[in-house]
This record gives sequence, C-alpha cells and structure tokens, in this order.
Amino acid sequence: MVGLPARGKTYMARKLTHYLNWLGIKTKVFNLGDYRRQATKELDHTFFNAENEEAVKLRDKFASDALTDMCNWIRLEGGEVGVFDATNTTIERRRFIYKIVVENMQFKLLFIESICDDPNLVEENIMDVKVTSPDYKEMNGEEAYQDFMQRILQYEKIYQSIDENLEEHLSFMKLFNAGQKMLIHKCEGNVQARIVYFFMNIHINPRTIYFSRHGESELNTVGKIGGNSDLSERGYEYSKALAKYIKLQDIKNLRVWTSHLKRTIQTASGIEAPQECWKALNEIDAGVCEEMTYQEIANKYPKEFAERDENKYHYRFPNGESYEDVVTRLEPVIMELERQKNVLVISHQAVLRCILGYFFNKSTDEIPYIKVPLHTIIKLTPIAYGCHVEYIPLGIKAVDTHRPKPKTSGTLETDAYHEEFLEDYLY
Amino acid sequence: MVGLPARGKTYMARKLTHYLNWLGIKTKVFNLGDYRRQATKELDHTFFNAENEEAVKLRDKFASDALTDMCNWIRLEGGEVGVFDATNTTIERRRFIYKIVVENMQFKLLFIESICDDPNLVEENIMDVKVTSPDYKEMNGEEAYQDFMQRILQYEKIYQSIDENLEEHLSFMKLFNAGQKMLIHKCEGNVQARIVYFFMNIHINPRTIYFSRHGESELNTVGKIGGNSDLSERGYEYSKALAKYIKLQDIKNLRVWTSHLKRTIQTASGIEAPQECWKALNEIDAGVCEEMTYQEIANKYPKEFAERDENKYHYRFPNGESYEDVVTRLEPVIMELERQKNVLVISHQAVLRCILGYFFNKSTDEIPYIKVPLHTIIKLTPIAYGCHVEYIPLGIKAVDTHRPKPKTSGTLETDAYHEEFLEDYLY
Repeated sequence: MVGLPARGKTYMARKLTHYLNWLGIKTKVFNLGDYRRQATKELDHTFFNAENEEAVKLRDKFASDALTDMCNWIRLEGGEVGVFDATNTTIERRRFIYKIVVENMQFKLLFIESICDDPNLVEENIMDVKVTSPDYKEMNGEEAYQDFMQRILQYEKIYQSIDENLEEHLSFMKLFNAGQKMLIHKCEGNVQARIVYFFMNIHINPRTIYFSRHGESELNTVGKIGGNSDLSERGYEYSKALAKYIKLQDIKNLRVWTSHLKRTIQTASGIEAPQECWKALNEIDAGVCEEMTYQEIANKYPKEFAERDENKYHYRFPNGESYEDVVTRLEPVIMELERQKNVLVISHQAVLRCILGYFFNKSTDEIPYIKVPLHTIIKLTPIAYGCHVEYIPLGIKAVDTHRPKPKTSGTLETDAYHEEFLEDYLY
Repeated sequence: MVGLPARGKTYMARKLTHYLNWLGIKTKVFNLGDYRRQATKELDHTFFNAENEEAVKLRDKFASDALTDMCNWIRLEGGEVGVFDATNTTIERRRFIYKIVVENMQFKLLFIESICDDPNLVEENIMDVKVTSPDYKEMNGEEAYQDFMQRILQYEKIYQSIDENLEEHLSFMKLFNAGQKMLIHKCEGNVQARIVYFFMNIHINPRTIYFSRHGESELNTVGKIGGNSDLSERGYEYSKALAKYIKLQDIKNLRVWTSHLKRTIQTASGIEAPQECWKALNEIDAGVCEEMTYQEIANKYPKEFAERDENKYHYRFPNGESYEDVVTRLEPVIMELERQKNVLVISHQAVLRCILGYFFNKSTDEIPYIKVPLHTIIKLTPIAYGCHVEYIPLGIKAVDTHRPKPKTSGTLETDAYHEEFLEDYLY
C-alpha cells in the first residue's frame, strides 16, 4: 500500500485480504503500525518527523522486520499474497521494497496507492477509525485528532506519489478519492487483474443488505434436502410477512435477488421492488442425495455422510457440489453485491452461509455451520472495518433445518435455535 | 470510441461488441467510415483536412446520421449497447455526442480512448488492417500506406485527448499502448465495470488456443449423454495420440485445462504440461436426462425433446442446465482465456460449442449446432479482426455424437461428419 495516513489504506488492505481469503487465495496483512506498537510505547507526532533521526532509524527497522516476516510467511508457510500496510510514501522506500521482494525473492509486486484530496473523506476516515486507534488509547478524541493531523503533516513534507517516469518499471494502481478515478500501470497476471477489478467495484456509500432464506418449503416440512418444491402454508405466510416488513422499512431503490428455484421466487412474490433471478443463487447441488432426508443419506451413504462431517467445506456430494464449489460460483454475486446499494437477497441455507462467510470473515471450517434459520431476516450494515449484523425473526413458525457439527461424525443431532441477536463482525 | 486513426479503435469496438453479445447484452457497432463510404466515392486524405469546409460539413452529417441510427436502434429495436466507432477527437465533437446521448436520450455514455505513441504498434495496425480497408481497394499497398499516414496527420492537427479538467463530468477510460496503462474516470454501473475489466484482460500478443473434447467415453459408445464414465479403449488411444501430437508441436509455456469429470482428466493424463481442473468446464447438466440415450429421452419425455429442438439454446433440461446457463458459467473461463497465452482446453461437446461460439462470433441459434467431433483437435489462432481455425482429426475412430437440428422437431437424425477443414471467422 502507498499513501498518506487516513487515506483508507488499512480499510483497503483488510477488505482485499478478506476477499482473497474467501476466494481461497491465502492472504495476510502485515501492518507496520503493529510492529511499531509492539516495540515502543505510545508515541506522538514528533516520532513521525523525518528529521528525528533516531525515530527514522527505528521506523526503517520496523519496515524491514515486517517485510522479512512477510517474505518468510510466503516462502515457508504457504502464504500466497502478503499485503504490506504502511505509508511507503517515498521513492527510496519503494526501491527498498522492490529490491527485497522482486530482486531477492523473485515475487510479483503491485503497489496500490490511495490518493485523496477531498478533505471530507479524510476527516471522515480520521473520525471513523483513527481517533479510536490503539495509538491513541490514552488521549481524548480532540487531542488524538490534533495529533493525527500533525502526523499527516510530517508525512506530507516528504510524500512522493508513485512517479510514472522515475518508477516506470513498477506495476501499480492509483485510486483517487475512493475510486472516482483509477490509474493502472503494467498490471500483470490473474491475481493483479482481480485485485484491480475488486477495487473498481467496492464503494464506501452507506447502504444495507438484507438476506433471507425462502419461506419453509414442502420438502422442508418432511425433512428432505434440495429439490424444487413449492412453499408450505407457513412458507406462504412468511412470504407475506416479509413483503409487509420490507414495505414498512421504505428502503430507497431496493433491488430483490432470488435464485431460479420456485421457493425463493414465491417468497419474493409480494415484495414491491424490481426482482432478478440468479442461477448462481441456487441451493448447493446435493447430487445423488437430492430430495433425501439426512436419515436416508446416513442409511444409504454412511461413508459419505461421515466424510462430509469431517470436512464439510470441501466435501463434494457424489455428482453434486461442495461448499467450495458454491463459493466459486458466487464470486460474481459478491462482486455485484459490492457494487450495489440496497439489496435483498432471497436464497438458500448453504448459499447464504457462503455469502455471509464473506461478510463475516469466517474461515472455511466455520462457513458450513453459520446459522441461517428459516423465517428470519438478516440485516447487514457495513461499518468502518467490518459490518453490523442483526437477525430479525418474523415470528412465523418453521421447521429447524440447521444440523450442527456433531461430536461424532455421521451421527444425527439437531439444536433449537431461534433467538434474535445483534453482532459486529470485523475484518 | 476516441482516438487517432490506427489506434485499434475498430478492433476494440468489434471485440467488445462480440463479447457483450455473447453474454446476452444486445450490442452493435456503428462505424462512421461505413456511413462515409456509403455516401461518397473513394476519398484521399484531403477529405480529412479540417480546413476543407465542405468535407467537414459532410463529415458532421455522417456523424449525426450514425448517432441518430444508434439512438433509434436502442429506443426502438431493443438494442442495449451501441458502440460508436469513430475518431471523436475533439472536445466539441464529444460535447455534441454528450448532448444527444445523455441530455436528449438520457442514456449512459462511456468514452473509450485509445492512445498509442509506440510507432511499431501503429505501423503494425496500419499494415494489418488499413491498407486492405475498403477505403483503399483501388490503391496499391505503398500508396495506401502513404495516404493513410497523411490522413493521420490531418487528425493530429486537431486532436484533443479527453481532458480531465475541461471534461470532468464525462465517464471515460483511456488505454495507453494496448493496455500497458489505463486511466478510469467516473465509471458507473455494471456494464461499464465489465467493459473496463474486459479491456484490462485482452491482449494482442500472438498465441494459439487448442480445443479438444475428451476421448470417446464408455457412455459415448452406448449413446448415453452426461454421466461421469471412464474413457473407452479408443478414448485411451486418442489420449495417447493427443499427448504425442502436443509434444511434437513443442508449444511454449502451454497450459492444459480440463473439467472435473474423469473423461477429460484421463484424456489429458499423458500431456507434459501444467494441468488445471475447472468445474466451469464440466459438461452441460442434463438433469433428469443424465445417462439416457436420445432415443430414451424421446420416448420418456417427448414434449421436452421436441421443445429442445425448437429453441435449443434457451431450453433448460428439467433440473439441469440450458446452453444459456452454460454461457453464464463460462464467462470467467473466457476472461481467463483472453488473458492467457498458449492453452489447450479439454472439455465437452456443449461447453466447447459455447466457447467456440464466442470465438467464432456465432448467434445463439447457431451455437448448439457447432460441430465439435470427437478425436479432433481444433486449433485457433487470433488474426487482425477475428481468428483462423483448423480442425485436425487424429485418425482414431470414434462414435459420432453430433445431432443436427432435425427438419421436424423431436425426430432422430444423425449425419456423418469427419473431414478436416480450415476456416476464418471474423468479428
């Protein structure tokens, strides 16, 4: 990352890391501030003055430590993408990074510079994340704000934006004012193209995303998975309650997405908003196990059933899909969700687990067990470094379809789960 | 489009149009040169001099005609994206376009400027497509080249690149030297994001793409579709012949892609090159018809079987997929094929029809009938405005699995089809 403080570098670094990890590309942030905080006590802006020689030496050491750790993580621990979250605002510093990463290690290197000359954006960023930063835990808000503005000034004195002529050999992208303009230079390879595309699509405008499973289906009531059945009577009741709830919220420019399966389309039918069907939102394909109960699967395919419990994320149903397959086909959905403003997604248990796994920053072990009860709206609001989540059951009874990870693989257990709750997920 | 002559505007306009149409977004190029050529006789470079008042008036009229036709096509004929292929090199001309397209019609407008200061790229472009252009059908190559250079000079005199300050309200992207650098400004909406991503991924380096179906499978030999069977004995023979053929070609940095199904992986097994499995390359999912013969389908589902013949592209197998669904899931494959150099894709009949449909610029009516015989390599080499194609049967016998569009829907017919042939497909 390259850029002055409070230009959203940490936001971008974390959000990118989290996206790549969800895609299955092992990614990790190395934040220079963490190295500094580990090694020294709380510091005010004088530490960031380029004329404070002792401090400059220390800061060089921290940068070198972070880079070394990052390279070792890639070389020795199977890391694929390291994100070096620091200001890296001088040509000299970038030359140092190039030397280590490209010349010594032969890795690919992409600089991502965030440039922001909109004072409102900078101020918002400072108020959102900086005055509450661990650097300022012993100052009050106003003091912290003033000190931080001083720190920015220290950096501005020596800031050199990436120079197309002097640094012509570098791969880089520059984002101006949170993506209003972008410059892309010598990007190469699939991962770099994806990174650029990702930053082209994310935005920081406030909005809310709503998720819901279809209402209870006829197959749900008999405990069978998959298929393409109609809603049960209670399912239709939920569909009406959902339409009423959404109407009351009076959401601006809401768009509704469903899968191609009848139960989600029927669930959305009463909602007054433009609707779109996505095949990618169809439930996980259970292959030979479609329209069977868990008991039937356990009886007919005991080996498969136990295997699935061992590694549910990677387990692929015979002639069907794994959670991993579902994540792959959901990538365009996630990209479009990032681009959109207010959306209501009506889909299925496994699919919503994969989507929520992205927003909640869950590991592949956790994703197949995320709770997505029937007849419950999940309301997600992005906040500074994560999202705020609210579960809103609409009070219409339904069967429980959640099957928790059993203590012994291949056995049948259920749990009751229907409370309302709030939570913040950070990345 | 914006840019001096010979900057690849027509190449980009056609390639983009063809990509969007394949995705199902109705797109059409309006080429200003075509309007000029329809209305006037062959013209030399003096026609393009900004001081030739009469010519300027005529050229304004052609631009206005083309824009009017484009707007009418969108308003009245269901067009979704019009690509105005002209130089549009002045602020005044772009203001005129903005007025018509945005202010009058309320359409979205994206300018795509191609800037090229690499004389080799410009010269290559002139030799590839300009000296053979319909404008020069009565001149020899050298004359045409000289006249064309004069024409560029006429444009250079008045050329104004899109100005970030003076034209700050425009959405635009600038491509420098065939994508080495890109500037993106105020892009909005899904289609614009896709267009930018597409141009980020295409390249003009020479390369070859090879396609092959898996070798004959056990289910092929009994006339059954779908499933996940092993290769037949003749299938294994083909797999060996394929590995030998590829080895003899000595292809630089070849990558091999297969589906997740056994028959493609077995077909690739002898090839000495890095291999990757794509779930998106799996055969079309025939749902309830999996592992049935066409005769069985015709007997058991006569209504569906006839319906499929009526509109094969959009027909979705019960609980399975349509060709349209396959195209949707192939989008990332096409994007990655555009990014890559030499690749061998080993996949299945319906999937290869969809991929070849993209490269051959076939309509949705034609795609489900593209011939992709077993035991035959399809070698595709991109050329100036299209691709050159060679079918190379390796001489190992196999069943014929092609079912042509019958004269009467729902009846069974086959045709024999095994010759070698060459063809050029243009877009």
